[in-house]
Amino acid sequence: MRYKVTVAYDGRAYVGFQSQINGLAIQDVIEKGLRKIFNQDDLRIVMASRTDKGVHARDQVFHFDHEKVIEPARLKMAINTFMPNDIHILKVEHVDSSFHARYLVKNKTYEYLVNLGEYDVFLNGYAYQCYYKLDIEKMIEASKLFLGTHDFTSFNTSPKDLYPNQVRTIYEFEIRKDGDRLTFHIKGDGFLRHMVRIIVGTLIELGRGKKNISDVKEMFDHPTKSKRRYNIDGAGLYLMKIEY
Amino acid sequence: MRYKVTVAYDGRAYVGFQSQINGLAIQDVIEKGLRKIFNQDDLRIVMASRTDKGVHARDQVFHFDHEKVIEPARLKMAINTFMPNDIHILKVEHVDSSFHARYLVKNKTYEYLVNLGEYDVFLNGYAYQCYYKLDIEKMIEASKLFLGTHDFTSFNTSPKDLYPNQVRTIYEFEIRKDGDRLTFHIKGDGFLRHMVRIIVGTLIELGRGKKNISDVKEMFDHPTKSKRRYNIDGAGLYLMKIEY
Repeated sequence: MRYKVTVAYDGRAYVGFQSQINGLAIQDVIEKGLRKIFNQDDLRIVMASRTDKGVHARDQVFHFDHEKVIEPARLKMAINTFMPNDIHILKVEHVDSSFHARYLVKNKTYEYLVNLGEYDVFLNGYAYQCYYKLDIEKMIEASKLFLGTHDFTSFNTSPKDLYPNQVRTIYEFEIRKDGDRLTFHIKGDGFLRHMVRIIVGTLIELGRGKKNISDVKEMFDHPTKSKRRYNIDGAGLYLMKIEY
Repeated sequence: MRYKVTVAYDGRAYVGFQSQINGLAIQDVIEKGLRKIFNQDDLRIVMASRTDKGVHARDQVFHFDHEKVIEPARLKMAINTFMPNDIHILKVEHVDSSFHARYLVKNKTYEYLVNLGEYDVFLNGYAYQCYYKLDIEKMIEASKLFLGTHDFTSFNTSPKDLYPNQVRTIYEFEIRKDGDRLTFHIKGDGFLRHMVRIIVGTLIELGRGKKNISDVKEMFDHPTKSKRRYNIDGAGLYLMKIEY
Protein backbone atom coordinates (compact mmCIF):
# COMPACT_ATOMS: atom_id res chain seq x y z
CA MET A 1 0.00 0.00 0.00
CA ARG A 2 1.25 3.48 -0.85
CA TYR A 3 0.33 6.13 1.73
CA LYS A 4 0.14 9.86 0.97
CA VAL A 5 0.48 11.98 4.10
CA THR A 6 -0.05 15.72 4.62
CA VAL A 7 1.76 17.30 7.55
CA ALA A 8 2.09 20.73 9.21
CA TYR A 9 5.06 21.73 11.34
CA ASP A 10 6.63 24.59 13.22
CA GLY A 11 10.20 24.48 11.92
CA ARG A 12 11.90 26.41 14.72
CA ALA A 13 13.37 23.40 16.51
CA TYR A 14 14.63 21.53 13.42
CA VAL A 15 17.53 21.58 10.96
CA GLY A 16 14.98 21.29 8.15
CA PHE A 17 12.66 18.64 6.79
CA GLN A 18 15.30 16.34 5.32
CA SER A 19 17.53 14.18 7.56
CA GLN A 20 21.00 15.59 8.04
CA ILE A 21 24.05 14.64 10.06
CA ASN A 22 24.12 17.90 12.02
CA GLY A 23 20.90 17.77 14.01
CA LEU A 24 17.30 16.68 14.31
CA ALA A 25 15.18 16.89 11.15
CA ILE A 26 11.41 16.66 10.83
CA GLN A 27 11.91 13.58 8.62
CA ASP A 28 13.74 11.84 11.53
CA VAL A 29 10.83 12.42 13.90
CA ILE A 30 8.21 11.23 11.41
CA GLU A 31 10.18 8.14 10.35
CA LYS A 32 10.80 7.20 13.99
CA GLY A 33 7.02 7.24 14.59
CA LEU A 34 6.22 5.28 11.42
CA ARG A 35 8.92 2.69 12.20
CA LYS A 36 7.29 2.02 15.55
CA ILE A 37 3.80 1.77 14.08
CA PHE A 38 4.81 -0.52 11.22
CA ASN A 39 7.56 -2.29 13.18
CA GLN A 40 10.03 -1.82 10.31
CA ASP A 41 13.40 -0.26 11.12
CA ASP A 42 14.32 0.88 7.62
CA LEU A 43 11.02 2.49 6.64
CA ARG A 44 11.74 5.68 4.65
CA ILE A 45 9.50 8.48 3.45
CA VAL A 46 9.70 10.44 0.18
CA MET A 47 9.00 14.14 0.71
CA ALA A 48 7.54 16.62 -1.78
CA SER A 49 9.75 19.47 -0.71
CA ARG A 50 12.90 19.92 1.33
CA THR A 51 12.34 22.86 3.62
CA ASP A 52 15.36 24.49 5.27
CA LYS A 53 16.28 25.10 8.88
CA GLY A 54 13.60 27.11 10.67
CA VAL A 55 11.15 27.02 7.73
CA HIS A 56 7.54 26.15 8.54
CA ALA A 57 4.85 24.19 6.72
CA ARG A 58 1.10 24.32 6.81
CA ASP A 59 0.87 21.65 4.12
CA GLN A 60 3.87 19.47 3.33
CA VAL A 61 3.36 16.10 1.60
CA PHE A 62 5.26 12.82 1.72
CA HIS A 63 4.60 9.23 0.70
CA PHE A 64 5.79 5.84 1.87
CA ASP A 65 5.03 2.21 1.14
CA HIS A 66 4.10 -0.64 3.42
CA GLU A 67 2.38 -3.96 2.81
CA LYS A 68 0.26 -3.56 5.93
CA VAL A 69 -3.04 -1.75 5.25
CA ILE A 70 -4.16 0.64 7.97
CA GLU A 71 -7.32 2.68 7.60
CA PRO A 72 -6.37 6.38 6.95
CA ALA A 73 -8.15 8.01 9.92
CA ARG A 74 -6.73 5.42 12.30
CA LEU A 75 -3.21 5.78 10.93
CA LYS A 76 -3.43 9.58 11.19
CA MET A 77 -4.32 9.27 14.85
CA ALA A 78 -1.59 6.68 15.47
CA ILE A 79 1.16 8.81 13.89
CA ASN A 80 0.03 11.91 15.82
CA THR A 81 0.38 9.94 19.04
CA PHE A 82 4.11 9.77 18.29
CA MET A 83 4.48 13.39 17.15
CA PRO A 84 5.69 16.25 19.36
CA ASN A 85 3.51 19.39 19.66
CA ASP A 86 5.27 21.10 16.74
CA ILE A 87 4.53 18.41 14.12
CA HIS A 88 0.98 17.41 13.24
CA ILE A 89 -0.33 14.99 10.62
CA LEU A 90 -3.30 16.59 8.86
CA LYS A 91 -4.31 13.82 6.50
CA VAL A 92 -3.48 10.25 5.49
CA GLU A 93 -4.67 8.83 2.16
CA HIS A 94 -4.38 5.49 0.40
CA VAL A 95 -3.06 6.24 -3.09
CA ASP A 96 -2.27 4.36 -6.26
CA SER A 97 1.31 3.09 -6.50
CA SER A 98 1.83 5.49 -9.44
CA PHE A 99 1.57 8.46 -7.04
CA HIS A 100 4.91 10.09 -6.20
CA ALA A 101 5.17 12.91 -3.66
CA ARG A 102 8.06 14.66 -5.44
CA TYR A 103 7.89 13.81 -9.16
CA LEU A 104 4.19 14.53 -9.66
CA VAL A 105 4.01 17.96 -8.02
CA LYS A 106 2.06 20.39 -10.26
CA ASN A 107 2.65 23.48 -8.18
CA LYS A 108 3.72 24.70 -4.77
CA THR A 109 2.59 27.74 -2.81
CA TYR A 110 4.80 29.51 -0.31
CA GLU A 111 4.20 32.54 1.90
CA TYR A 112 6.76 34.78 3.49
CA LEU A 113 5.82 36.93 6.50
CA VAL A 114 7.47 40.26 7.34
CA ASN A 115 6.73 42.37 10.42
CA LEU A 116 7.11 46.08 9.69
CA GLY A 117 6.01 47.29 13.12
CA GLU A 118 7.52 47.20 16.59
CA TYR A 119 9.23 43.89 17.36
CA ASP A 120 6.54 41.35 18.32
CA VAL A 121 7.47 38.54 20.76
CA PHE A 122 4.75 36.37 19.23
CA LEU A 123 6.42 36.50 15.81
CA ASN A 124 9.79 35.38 17.16
CA GLY A 125 10.87 32.66 14.70
CA TYR A 126 7.72 33.22 12.63
CA ALA A 127 8.50 36.38 10.65
CA TYR A 128 11.31 38.58 9.39
CA GLN A 129 11.56 41.71 11.53
CA CYS A 130 12.07 44.64 9.15
CA TYR A 131 13.30 47.93 10.58
CA TYR A 132 13.54 49.65 7.19
CA LYS A 133 10.88 51.85 5.69
CA LEU A 134 9.72 50.12 2.52
CA ASP A 135 8.26 51.52 -0.71
CA ILE A 136 5.58 48.85 -1.02
CA GLU A 137 4.07 50.23 -4.24
CA LYS A 138 7.45 49.86 -5.93
CA MET A 139 7.81 46.33 -4.56
CA ILE A 140 4.39 45.36 -5.95
CA GLU A 141 5.36 46.81 -9.31
CA ALA A 142 8.63 44.84 -9.34
CA SER A 143 6.90 41.65 -8.19
CA LYS A 144 5.15 41.50 -11.59
CA LEU A 145 8.53 40.87 -13.26
CA PHE A 146 8.63 37.45 -11.57
CA LEU A 147 5.31 36.24 -13.00
CA GLY A 148 5.47 33.78 -15.89
CA THR A 149 8.30 31.60 -17.17
CA HIS A 150 11.85 32.83 -16.59
CA ASP A 151 15.40 31.69 -16.03
CA PHE A 152 15.75 32.08 -12.24
CA THR A 153 19.53 31.47 -12.17
CA SER A 154 20.13 34.81 -10.41
CA PHE A 155 17.50 34.07 -7.76
CA ASN A 156 18.59 30.79 -6.13
CA THR A 157 21.60 28.93 -4.75
CA SER A 158 21.18 25.57 -6.52
CA PRO A 159 24.47 24.96 -8.37
CA LYS A 160 24.18 25.04 -12.17
CA ASP A 161 26.20 21.85 -12.67
CA LEU A 162 23.73 19.85 -10.60
CA TYR A 163 20.62 21.77 -11.68
CA PRO A 164 21.31 22.94 -15.25
CA ASN A 165 17.69 23.85 -15.95
CA GLN A 166 16.80 26.83 -13.78
CA VAL A 167 13.76 27.90 -15.75
CA ARG A 168 10.63 27.96 -13.61
CA THR A 169 7.11 29.35 -13.94
CA ILE A 170 5.49 31.60 -11.33
CA TYR A 171 1.68 31.54 -11.51
CA GLU A 172 0.83 33.88 -8.65
CA PHE A 173 2.79 36.50 -6.78
CA GLU A 174 0.94 38.81 -4.43
CA ILE A 175 2.19 41.18 -1.76
CA ARG A 176 -0.48 41.87 0.84
CA LYS A 177 -0.26 44.44 3.62
CA ASP A 178 -2.41 43.95 6.71
CA GLY A 179 -1.52 46.57 9.33
CA ASP A 180 2.16 46.10 10.09
CA ARG A 181 2.32 42.66 8.50
CA LEU A 182 3.45 42.13 4.96
CA THR A 183 2.78 38.75 3.34
CA PHE A 184 4.42 37.60 0.12
CA HIS A 185 2.29 34.91 -1.51
CA ILE A 186 3.97 32.99 -4.35
CA LYS A 187 2.82 30.00 -6.36
CA GLY A 188 4.93 28.28 -8.99
CA ASP A 189 5.63 24.99 -10.73
CA GLY A 190 8.79 24.52 -8.70
CA PHE A 191 11.33 26.35 -6.61
CA LEU A 192 15.12 26.03 -6.53
CA ARG A 193 17.17 26.23 -3.35
CA HIS A 194 16.52 29.48 -1.40
CA MET A 195 14.53 30.81 -4.37
CA VAL A 196 11.60 32.26 -2.40
CA ARG A 197 13.93 33.78 0.19
CA ILE A 198 16.13 35.40 -2.48
CA ILE A 199 13.13 36.76 -4.40
CA VAL A 200 11.69 38.26 -1.19
CA GLY A 201 15.14 39.51 -0.14
CA THR A 202 15.60 41.19 -3.52
CA LEU A 203 12.23 42.93 -3.20
CA ILE A 204 13.06 44.07 0.36
CA GLU A 205 16.30 45.59 -0.95
CA LEU A 206 14.32 47.30 -3.69
CA GLY A 207 11.71 48.54 -1.21
CA ARG A 208 14.32 50.11 1.02
CA GLY A 209 16.03 51.77 -1.93
CA LYS A 210 19.18 49.65 -2.19
CA LYS A 211 18.10 48.34 -5.60
CA ASN A 212 15.89 49.69 -8.33
CA ILE A 213 13.67 48.02 -10.90
CA SER A 214 16.38 48.04 -13.57
CA ASP A 215 18.65 46.08 -11.20
CA VAL A 216 15.99 43.39 -10.92
CA LYS A 217 15.49 43.34 -14.70
CA GLU A 218 19.25 42.99 -15.07
CA MET A 219 19.17 39.88 -12.84
CA PHE A 220 16.71 38.33 -15.29
CA ASP A 221 18.47 39.59 -18.45
CA HIS A 222 21.93 38.41 -17.41
CA PRO A 223 21.43 35.32 -15.27
CA THR A 224 24.41 34.77 -13.00
CA LYS A 225 25.39 33.08 -9.76
CA SER A 226 28.37 35.36 -9.24
CA LYS A 227 26.62 38.39 -7.74
CA ARG A 228 25.77 38.79 -4.06
CA ARG A 229 22.16 37.87 -3.34
CA TYR A 230 20.17 38.74 -0.24
CA ASN A 231 19.12 35.39 1.19
CA ILE A 232 16.57 36.50 3.78
CA ASP A 233 16.03 34.51 7.03
CA GLY A 234 14.06 31.25 6.77
CA ALA A 235 11.99 32.06 9.87
CA GLY A 236 9.38 33.98 7.85
CA LEU A 237 8.89 31.22 5.26
CA TYR A 238 5.88 28.90 5.15
CA LEU A 239 5.21 26.06 2.70
CA MET A 240 1.45 26.56 2.29
CA LYS A 241 0.24 24.07 -0.30
CA ILE A 242 1.40 21.37 -2.69
CA GLU A 243 -0.86 20.43 -5.56
CA TYR A 244 -0.72 17.32 -7.76
CA MET B 1 13.20 59.13 39.18
CA ARG B 2 10.24 56.73 38.89
CA TYR B 3 10.08 54.78 35.62
CA LYS B 4 6.91 53.25 34.21
CA VAL B 5 7.63 50.44 31.76
CA THR B 6 5.31 48.57 29.39
CA VAL B 7 6.41 45.10 28.34
CA ALA B 8 5.19 42.24 26.10
CA TYR B 9 6.20 38.63 26.57
CA ASP B 10 5.63 35.11 25.34
CA GLY B 11 5.09 33.26 28.62
CA ARG B 12 5.83 29.75 27.39
CA ALA B 13 9.33 29.49 28.85
CA TYR B 14 8.60 31.01 32.26
CA VAL B 15 7.07 30.06 35.62
CA GLY B 16 5.10 33.33 35.50
CA PHE B 17 5.83 37.02 35.80
CA GLN B 18 6.65 37.07 39.51
CA SER B 19 9.92 35.64 40.85
CA GLN B 20 9.56 32.19 42.38
CA ILE B 21 11.89 29.61 43.85
CA ASN B 22 10.98 26.91 41.36
CA GLY B 23 12.17 28.35 38.08
CA LEU B 24 12.87 31.34 35.89
CA ALA B 25 10.33 34.17 36.01
CA ILE B 26 9.97 37.11 33.64
CA GLN B 27 10.64 39.44 36.61
CA ASP B 28 14.05 37.74 37.11
CA VAL B 29 15.07 38.38 33.51
CA ILE B 30 13.94 42.02 33.57
CA GLU B 31 15.55 42.78 36.94
CA LYS B 32 18.81 41.18 35.82
CA GLY B 33 18.91 43.55 32.84
CA LEU B 34 18.01 46.63 34.89
CA ARG B 35 20.60 45.76 37.56
CA LYS B 36 23.30 45.73 34.90
CA ILE B 37 22.15 49.00 33.34
CA PHE B 38 21.84 50.85 36.67
CA ASN B 39 24.68 48.93 38.35
CA GLN B 40 22.55 48.24 41.43
CA ASP B 41 22.29 44.65 42.63
CA ASP B 42 19.09 44.99 44.66
CA LEU B 43 17.00 46.92 42.14
CA ARG B 44 13.41 45.60 42.25
CA ILE B 45 10.40 46.24 40.07
CA VAL B 46 6.74 46.55 41.09
CA MET B 47 4.43 44.82 38.62
CA ALA B 48 0.82 45.66 37.79
CA SER B 49 -0.27 42.07 37.46
CA ARG B 50 1.11 38.67 38.35
CA THR B 51 0.58 36.43 35.36
CA ASP B 52 0.83 32.65 35.85
CA LYS B 53 3.01 30.02 34.25
CA GLY B 54 2.62 30.00 30.47
CA VAL B 55 0.43 33.13 30.39
CA HIS B 56 1.32 35.80 27.80
CA ALA B 57 1.20 39.58 27.81
CA ARG B 58 0.86 42.13 25.06
CA ASP B 59 0.85 44.96 27.56
CA GLN B 60 2.05 44.38 31.13
CA VAL B 61 3.21 47.32 33.25
CA PHE B 62 5.77 47.70 36.04
CA HIS B 63 7.54 50.56 37.78
CA PHE B 64 10.86 51.00 39.53
CA ASP B 65 12.85 53.85 41.05
CA HIS B 66 16.40 54.99 40.47
CA GLU B 67 18.16 58.25 41.12
CA LYS B 68 19.90 58.11 37.74
CA VAL B 69 17.88 59.78 34.96
CA ILE B 70 18.01 58.05 31.60
CA GLU B 71 16.04 59.35 28.64
CA PRO B 72 13.04 57.00 27.98
CA ALA B 73 13.83 56.02 24.36
CA ARG B 74 17.47 55.32 25.25
CA LEU B 75 16.53 53.26 28.30
CA LYS B 76 13.99 51.26 26.27
CA MET B 77 16.74 50.36 23.79
CA ALA B 78 19.20 49.54 26.56
CA ILE B 79 16.81 47.16 28.38
CA ASN B 80 15.88 45.42 25.12
CA THR B 81 19.57 44.75 24.51
CA PHE B 82 19.48 42.54 27.61
CA MET B 83 16.14 40.87 26.84
CA PRO B 84 15.76 37.45 25.19
CA ASN B 85 13.58 37.15 22.05
CA ASP B 86 10.46 36.34 24.07
CA ILE B 87 10.46 39.51 26.20
CA HIS B 88 10.27 42.98 24.65
CA ILE B 89 10.02 46.41 26.27
CA LEU B 90 7.42 48.45 24.39
CA LYS B 91 7.63 51.74 26.24
CA VAL B 92 9.51 53.55 29.02
CA GLU B 93 8.09 56.67 30.65
CA HIS B 94 9.22 59.08 33.34
CA VAL B 95 6.36 59.34 35.82
CA ASP B 96 5.53 61.23 38.96
CA SER B 97 6.54 59.50 42.21
CA SER B 98 2.84 59.17 43.05
CA PHE B 99 2.39 56.68 40.22
CA HIS B 100 2.09 53.07 41.35
CA ALA B 101 1.92 50.19 38.86
CA ARG B 102 -0.32 48.01 41.05
CA TYR B 103 -2.36 50.28 43.33
CA LEU B 104 -3.52 52.75 40.70
CA VAL B 105 -4.81 50.28 38.10
CA LYS B 106 -8.25 51.38 36.82
CA ASN B 107 -8.94 48.34 34.67
CA LYS B 108 -7.32 45.37 33.01
CA THR B 109 -8.18 43.64 29.77
CA TYR B 110 -7.51 39.96 29.15
CA GLU B 111 -8.15 37.76 26.15
CA TYR B 112 -8.41 34.00 26.04
CA LEU B 113 -7.88 32.13 22.77
CA VAL B 114 -9.50 28.79 21.93
CA ASN B 115 -8.90 26.77 18.77
CA LEU B 116 -12.01 24.83 17.73
CA GLY B 117 -10.54 23.39 14.53
CA GLU B 118 -7.91 20.79 13.73
CA TYR B 119 -4.88 21.00 16.04
CA ASP B 120 -2.64 23.83 14.78
CA VAL B 121 1.13 23.56 15.43
CA PHE B 122 1.37 27.36 15.35
CA LEU B 123 -0.99 27.68 18.32
CA ASN B 124 1.03 25.28 20.48
CA GLY B 125 1.31 27.10 23.81
CA TYR B 126 -0.80 29.98 22.46
CA ALA B 127 -4.37 28.64 22.64
CA TYR B 128 -6.57 26.04 24.29
CA GLN B 129 -7.27 23.21 21.87
CA CYS B 130 -10.96 22.36 22.17
CA TYR B 131 -12.19 19.06 20.74
CA TYR B 132 -15.75 19.52 21.97
CA LYS B 133 -18.61 20.89 19.92
CA LEU B 134 -19.70 24.11 21.62
CA ASP B 135 -23.06 25.86 21.70
CA ILE B 136 -21.64 29.32 21.22
CA GLU B 137 -24.98 31.14 21.28
CA LYS B 138 -25.64 29.71 24.73
CA MET B 139 -22.14 30.73 25.87
CA ILE B 140 -22.72 34.31 24.66
CA GLU B 141 -26.03 34.38 26.50
CA ALA B 142 -24.38 33.16 29.74
CA SER B 143 -21.45 35.58 29.34
CA LYS B 144 -23.88 38.45 30.04
CA LEU B 145 -24.32 37.16 33.60
CA PHE B 146 -20.71 38.17 34.32
CA LEU B 147 -21.14 41.82 33.31
CA GLY B 148 -21.39 44.36 36.13
CA THR B 149 -20.52 44.11 39.82
CA HIS B 150 -20.72 40.68 41.45
CA ASP B 151 -19.22 38.53 44.15
CA PHE B 152 -16.80 36.32 42.16
CA THR B 153 -16.00 33.95 45.04
CA SER B 154 -17.08 30.92 42.98
CA PHE B 155 -14.91 31.96 40.05
CA ASN B 156 -11.37 32.19 41.43
CA THR B 157 -8.84 30.44 43.64
CA SER B 158 -7.74 33.37 45.85
CA PRO B 159 -8.35 32.22 49.46
CA LYS B 160 -11.10 34.11 51.28
CA ASP B 161 -9.03 34.64 54.44
CA LEU B 162 -6.35 36.51 52.49
CA TYR B 163 -8.72 38.18 50.01
CA PRO B 164 -12.01 38.69 51.89
CA ASN B 165 -13.45 41.09 49.33
CA GLN B 166 -14.08 39.13 46.15
CA VAL B 167 -16.47 41.60 44.59
CA ARG B 168 -15.27 42.78 41.20
CA THR B 169 -16.77 44.68 38.27
CA ILE B 170 -16.65 43.42 34.69
CA TYR B 171 -17.06 46.21 32.14
CA GLU B 172 -16.78 44.26 28.92
CA PHE B 173 -17.15 40.59 28.06
CA GLU B 174 -17.29 39.57 24.42
CA ILE B 175 -17.00 36.19 22.76
CA ARG B 176 -15.87 36.52 19.15
CA LYS B 177 -15.71 33.71 16.61
CA ASP B 178 -13.37 34.07 13.64
CA GLY B 179 -13.33 30.85 11.65
CA ASP B 180 -12.15 28.14 14.02
CA ARG B 181 -10.82 30.59 16.59
CA LEU B 182 -12.84 31.71 19.55
CA THR B 183 -11.65 34.75 21.52
CA PHE B 184 -12.95 35.69 24.95
CA HIS B 185 -12.37 39.40 25.58
CA ILE B 186 -12.87 40.55 29.17
CA LYS B 187 -12.26 43.89 30.84
CA GLY B 188 -12.71 44.53 34.54
CA ASP B 189 -11.55 46.61 37.48
CA GLY B 190 -9.53 43.69 38.83
CA PHE B 191 -9.15 39.94 38.62
CA LEU B 192 -8.56 37.42 41.38
CA ARG B 193 -6.30 34.39 41.00
CA HIS B 194 -7.29 32.20 37.99
CA MET B 195 -10.46 34.26 37.60
CA VAL B 196 -10.35 34.65 33.81
CA ARG B 197 -9.42 30.99 33.36
CA ILE B 198 -12.26 29.78 35.60
CA ILE B 199 -14.81 32.06 33.90
CA VAL B 200 -13.74 30.80 30.46
CA GLY B 201 -13.60 27.20 31.74
CA THR B 202 -17.13 27.53 33.12
CA LEU B 203 -18.42 28.82 29.78
CA ILE B 204 -16.67 25.99 27.90
CA GLU B 205 -18.38 23.47 30.20
CA LEU B 206 -21.68 25.23 29.51
CA GLY B 207 -21.02 25.26 25.75
CA ARG B 208 -20.37 21.53 25.66
CA GLY B 209 -23.49 20.78 27.69
CA LYS B 210 -21.91 19.83 31.02
CA LYS B 211 -23.46 22.86 32.74
CA ASN B 212 -26.52 24.95 32.03
CA ILE B 213 -27.32 28.61 32.64
CA SER B 214 -28.98 27.90 35.99
CA ASP B 215 -25.74 26.26 37.21
CA VAL B 216 -23.85 29.47 36.42
CA LYS B 217 -26.53 31.57 38.15
CA GLU B 218 -26.22 29.27 41.15
CA MET B 219 -22.47 29.99 41.31
CA PHE B 220 -23.30 33.69 41.63
CA ASP B 221 -26.25 33.21 43.99
CA HIS B 222 -24.41 30.93 46.40
CA PRO B 223 -20.75 31.97 46.31
CA THR B 224 -18.53 29.11 47.42
CA LYS B 225 -14.97 27.83 47.10
CA SER B 226 -15.98 24.26 47.90
CA LYS B 227 -17.23 23.19 44.46
CA ARG B 228 -15.01 21.87 41.66
CA ARG B 229 -14.12 24.59 39.17
CA TYR B 230 -12.73 24.11 35.67
CA ASN B 231 -9.44 26.00 35.68
CA ILE B 232 -8.60 26.02 31.98
CA ASP B 233 -4.96 25.97 30.76
CA GLY B 234 -3.01 29.25 31.01
CA ALA B 235 -1.57 28.85 27.49
CA GLY B 236 -4.55 30.60 25.87
CA LEU B 237 -4.47 33.60 28.21
CA TYR B 238 -3.16 37.05 27.22
CA LEU B 239 -2.92 40.16 29.37
CA MET B 240 -3.87 42.74 26.75
CA LYS B 241 -4.02 46.12 28.43
CA ILE B 242 -3.69 47.86 31.79
CA GLU B 243 -5.23 51.30 32.22
CA TYR B 244 -4.57 53.87 34.91
